[in-house]
Amino acid sequence: MTVEEKAAQLGSVNADRVIEDGEVDREAAAEWLEHGIGHLTRIGGEGSLSPADAARVTNDLQDLLEEETRLGLPAIPHEECLSGYMGPEATTFPQMIGMASTWNPELLEDVTETIRGELQALGTTHALSPVLDVARDLRWGRVEETFGEDPLLVASMACAYVSGLQGEGRSDGISATLKHFVGHGATDGGKNRSSLNVGPRELREVHLFPYEAAISEANAESVMNAYHDIDGIPCASSEWLLTDVLRGEFGFDGTVVSDYYSVRHLVTEHGTANTKPEAATQALEAGLDVELPYTDYYGEFLVEAVENGDLSEATLDESVRRVLREKARKGVLDDPTVDAEAAADAFHTDEAAEVNRKAACQSMTLLKNEDDLLPLDVDSVAVVGPKADAKKELLGDYAYAAHYPEEEYESDATTPLSALESRDGLDVHYEEGCTISGPSTEGFDSAVDAASDADVTLAFVGARSAVDFSDVDAEKENKLSVPTSGEGCDVTDLGLPGVQEELVDQLLETDTPVVVVVVSGKPHSIEEIAEEAPAVLYAWLPGDEGGPAIADVLLGEHNPGGRLPVSLPKSVGQLPVYYNRKANTANKGYVYTDSEPVYPFGHGLSYTEFEYADLELSEESVPPLGTLTASVTVTNTGERAGSEVVQLYTHAANPSQARPVQELTGFERLSLDPGESARVSFELSPTQLAFHDESMDLAVEEGPYEVRIGRSASDIVASEELEVSASKVVPKTARRYFAETTVESE
Amino acid sequence: MTVEEKAAQLGSVNADRVIEDGEVDREAAAEWLEHGIGHLTRIGGEGSLSPADAARVTNDLQDLLEEETRLGLPAIPHEECLSGYMGPEATTFPQMIGMASTWNPELLEDVTETIRGELQALGTTHALSPVLDVARDLRWGRVEETFGEDPLLVASMACAYVSGLQGEGRSDGISATLKHFVGHGATDGGKNRSSLNVGPRELREVHLFPYEAAISEANAESVMNAYHDIDGIPCASSEWLLTDVLRGEFGFDGTVVSDYYSVRHLVTEHGTANTKPEAATQALEAGLDVELPYTDYYGEFLVEAVENGDLSEATLDESVRRVLREKARKGVLDDPTVDAEAAADAFHTDEAAEVNRKAACQSMTLLKNEDDLLPLDVDSVAVVGPKADAKKELLGDYAYAAHYPEEEYESDATTPLSALESRDGLDVHYEEGCTISGPSTEGFDSAVDAASDADVTLAFVGARSAVDFSDVDAEKENKLSVPTSGEGCDVTDLGLPGVQEELVDQLLETDTPVVVVVVSGKPHSIEEIAEEAPAVLYAWLPGDEGGPAIADVLLGEHNPGGRLPVSLPKSVGQLPVYYNRKANTANKGYVYTDSEPVYPFGHGLSYTEFEYADLELSEESVPPLGTLTASVTVTNTGERAGSEVVQLYTHAANPSQARPVQELTGFERLSLDPGESARVSFELSPTQLAFHDESMDLAVEEGPYEVRIGRSASDIVASEELEVSASKVVPKTARRYFAETTVESE
Repeated sequence: MTVEEKAAQLGSVNADRVIEDGEVDREAAAEWLEHGIGHLTRIGGEGSLSPADAARVTNDLQDLLEEETRLGLPAIPHEECLSGYMGPEATTFPQMIGMASTWNPELLEDVTETIRGELQALGTTHALSPVLDVARDLRWGRVEETFGEDPLLVASMACAYVSGLQGEGRSDGISATLKHFVGHGATDGGKNRSSLNVGPRELREVHLFPYEAAISEANAESVMNAYHDIDGIPCASSEWLLTDVLRGEFGFDGTVVSDYYSVRHLVTEHGTANTKPEAATQALEAGLDVELPYTDYYGEFLVEAVENGDLSEATLDESVRRVLREKARKGVLDDPTVDAEAAADAFHTDEAAEVNRKAACQSMTLLKNEDDLLPLDVDSVAVVGPKADAKKELLGDYAYAAHYPEEEYESDATTPLSALESRDGLDVHYEEGCTISGPSTEGFDSAVDAASDADVTLAFVGARSAVDFSDVDAEKENKLSVPTSGEGCDVTDLGLPGVQEELVDQLLETDTPVVVVVVSGKPHSIEEIAEEAPAVLYAWLPGDEGGPAIADVLLGEHNPGGRLPVSLPKSVGQLPVYYNRKANTANKGYVYTDSEPVYPFGHGLSYTEFEYADLELSEESVPPLGTLTASVTVTNTGERAGSEVVQLYTHAANPSQARPVQELTGFERLSLDPGESARVSFELSPTQLAFHDESMDLAVEEGPYEVRIGRSASDIVASEELEVSASKVVPKTARRYFAETTVESE
Repeated sequence: MTVEEKAAQLGSVNADRVIEDGEVDREAAAEWLEHGIGHLTRIGGEGSLSPADAARVTNDLQDLLEEETRLGLPAIPHEECLSGYMGPEATTFPQMIGMASTWNPELLEDVTETIRGELQALGTTHALSPVLDVARDLRWGRVEETFGEDPLLVASMACAYVSGLQGEGRSDGISATLKHFVGHGATDGGKNRSSLNVGPRELREVHLFPYEAAISEANAESVMNAYHDIDGIPCASSEWLLTDVLRGEFGFDGTVVSDYYSVRHLVTEHGTANTKPEAATQALEAGLDVELPYTDYYGEFLVEAVENGDLSEATLDESVRRVLREKARKGVLDDPTVDAEAAADAFHTDEAAEVNRKAACQSMTLLKNEDDLLPLDVDSVAVVGPKADAKKELLGDYAYAAHYPEEEYESDATTPLSALESRDGLDVHYEEGCTISGPSTEGFDSAVDAASDADVTLAFVGARSAVDFSDVDAEKENKLSVPTSGEGCDVTDLGLPGVQEELVDQLLETDTPVVVVVVSGKPHSIEEIAEEAPAVLYAWLPGDEGGPAIADVLLGEHNPGGRLPVSLPKSVGQLPVYYNRKANTANKGYVYTDSEPVYPFGHGLSYTEFEYADLELSEESVPPLGTLTASVTVTNTGERAGSEVVQLYTHAANPSQARPVQELTGFERLSLDPGESARVSFELSPTQLAFHDESMDLAVEEGPYEVRIGRSASDIVASEELEVSASKVVPKTARRYFAETTVESE
């Protein structure tokens, strides 16, 4: 391979550069693909092509690479996906914060298996998900893309996401990309791309943990660097991060791809490079293999750096080898093309809709239900609020449909209003009341009238999540539906946008009971609503099946079992409120506010009730590399079938360092019929209690611990003491990330 | 010395335990002082004794130690001081955030020389100030005790504070205590004592920098550990911090004293110790020499640890040696007593009042002055607001008088109202309008009436700063004057407390121009006031002479020259807004708000105008350990004498790491007559541009830099390019912390 050919393998070209009117622009393609190419960026998604067209154009580009380049090497077509393939016709599942609320990794694996099927049909082999950022600053717009605030929950869901997307073998799956490596959920001011300031131990135990788990346990095939710097070192040029830790310590053998434009940012944001060859050299030497979304700072500038002697060709070779290995593993080198005519068959399947409905239902998180107001047993409802009847408002950022107005691209989503209207015997009166973010209260009166005439008011409120790609300026201009969640939409206030809180206040002043349904990717500060409204359902961004799922829950056809993956703060000024703070942070409040969230991590109600009994540990004292089992019996003592999420927390009672007040170490979502009992057993390893000692070795420490079972982080129902008999540095091979859970019916 | 006698040297006893009705309680004292004692805690301050009594009781205790203990070793009497000795009769100067606003270290040195005089008269030899915390989270109540957000400004003021307090020689000064080691100004959630999460580089360059400077340049004799943990390691038990860094790297040879109760917190907050001997051993082994405020976890528990073999006697000896060395250096071992009858002479001096008035005047920071509304040229003023006529409301936390109601202890402060009423030819009408934090708007109407009838309205607003020691519960009960600044008073909102903002809104609706005078230790989010009010004066907590100083400024008898030591944010949700963020943080805003503060660091107006010309560097290229001089000419082009603070910032144009957008490297407060010019020269060392490389060595890096002159961090008036010719690790001896400044009249 020539140096040009090698460099070309480390770059990409995006759809807009090589597609014209739905066909390959052969002139442009010939230029971009002259020396071959590493990736093809978002042919279907950015190209806005139907599945058949996406597959056909991808095939054409692969043919072109095979036939018209000297080496004939096909490319890795990658797409964005998160709650679904980010392209036309895709199934849109609940946004990830909602999937995390299911506390059901198996279900997420079903979801991403479905996504895999759609992507495979296009000839895609690589996708830029999942997001492993641990959400520590809720001002950040991308919190909705995460699995919440807890490293273990994030790691569990991440492993499931990866397993579903990649499949069993490496050849027929989609390479998953863990991002944003690392710590994007805790940057300064909660701002996208701003600096990360974190101690080295917290960096490892909170932010790196999910990566280590997803690499070790789920064999994730790709990692994407984060935009920000950590204590001054940009992630894109951090050899310590991208090579020493990622490959050296975690044993990662896949490809590192750049977050879009992050090589450029070394010049334009971080200022550590002055020129393209300099930035390219810094990134490549650190271990960043592939520049995305298109070859801009790599390519000819890598060639220039090699020719000038600033970059060793061996470094280039190493990254090229990784890209080619990915191509070989995925079968791209054998036959990269797919049956374009069959592509559409993978979309709009009944199976996908079924998984989607299940996911949406399981993500529903019931926070409050005074006097069993829910499920509804009424004749008439007033449906109010800007989230009640807008399809796009059910979808998260990175969902294709969410980014275009209905007239430009019709979403498959069913709104809560439509779903409710379709149910027999329910009289539904709808009033929007107000827009998402506009200042007008003109609609309040009719909304209040409707509420006054109904048996129950259903108020659908929340933030908008996705920037309108078709006309960003117009969107900013009209101010009625400004996105205040999603990428680039960071906020200084966690309240509901616009006049929505005022609308809810007015509804609450009527005599009609109000169910507040929060349809939002944002963890909002809803202290007042939590106090005043008799019922609150957090529906997150539930996707295409969100409307029916919400109706199912409201009407009792699905018994909600979601649990918060993030603590809901009382106000932005109270951040951080995540449950696993250290005691000196967790136990101190402010002049007018304590340190407790409005609703804690792990909280969620059901229409039935569960009782816990007989927490037992198999051992009272275990060696540091031994195992023990914590078992507890859970009984559905109510009159409906329902789901309970059994949460296992551990607490170090006398550690050598200040440690979090407790840490989630295991969990299990159970379904139990009325009267049914199950014995849940968590096989734990003391290595799950390990932390980094003064020399930054991961070590289990001898001493007393507490094993706790909780309904939420704030509602511990039982605890037992445990002694670890000796201290020990944890050998990589002995490390366990997750508890093994078994459930026996009793 | 017996082990008991050694352990006793590492402890203290506080006033309340050994004083009864203003006399030594000889029985209690005999018990507490049986084996001698290291310190005597706040005899005058906690004992609430007059200077003469404080001196007499201290003498008595020292006599008792000399005469009735086996070794006859006197103790180190320490007191709290910050804006003044924290005891009866003390002069109360402006709170430190106000002193920082003077940007005049020499003036601060005059202030602390005065404090030294008062403390010496009592027989005190050690004081628990200054605060070197760099204020990075403005929710923290103790921000008012700091010198603001910038490491260099903090370090400069800290050195001045220490020099004034300690004096030239070691024998007659007061040992200054640098606190809280380290990073208390950036803890999680802005909460007192909560965890610090910070990268190792930021820890050194922001938080450790002032300590290193104050130890190297001002020979600070004592250091107090912070309460919190850093990335899990409590400061009180961090050998790395208290020994490796502090003594090993910084060459500190004084004593480390505990923040009150912080040895206890190892058990009660951090959980790293289970028993008193365990906590004592952890702290002592880390390098914490003396437990304060009284022997609780040290003393007999250190003895027990030595006897059990858990603590080596050599470790004990090392700390004892340090305490005895301090006693020897301060002359305590020669003659610890003072002339008690003369003690009162050091108080209430004309010199102190003069320095105090000067400090208060120079701390006044004029933020806005539309149409030259100030200085006032009117016949009548309406004085409104809860900060206008309350003496205690002018004083900061740790000011003795601030903590007791007027009827219990009469403050020497003169209120703005009294000061204004005493000026000839000014018709003053006063209405309180509202209380500090109460909900009542009953007083609004009369306030608005008064405003409507006056030529100008002066609205005195702000937060209360000091907890009422005499009846904390009653204070909480009445809610009218809840402290929302000061220790333990952290807040989730940076607005003015209570209904004060509403009051200002109503005043602004009258036709009378409103001057808003913020009398507060808190950097408030005053975006709306900054937009609507024609004039805004930030008076901070200006101390006993605050009223007259404010009157001087409003009436033009003093031309204000204070500059903000901290950026004022638009809202709590916008934090952090400090100016020296990295580019990727500084340049990114939020959906509805940019990243700019309302007023930037360094901002302040004058009644005259200054022009800058002829910025020149003596060299364009310098070796890393060389020097260069940046000179600029400043001319007072207005018609009044006035002060300008020339601010020198540096910027690394192409560093190997992401660096702050700029950093303050020098400053000089100038006084110029109308038409007068001065040439200000800063002799800089490239070591001032150094940062920590990947191996955490402090190194100057070759490459281009920019030297900038600004009126504030956001108002750069000139800049020049500079090249550092080579990279070099900075040897300790070559390190320069501050620019040498010279001013020549032109």
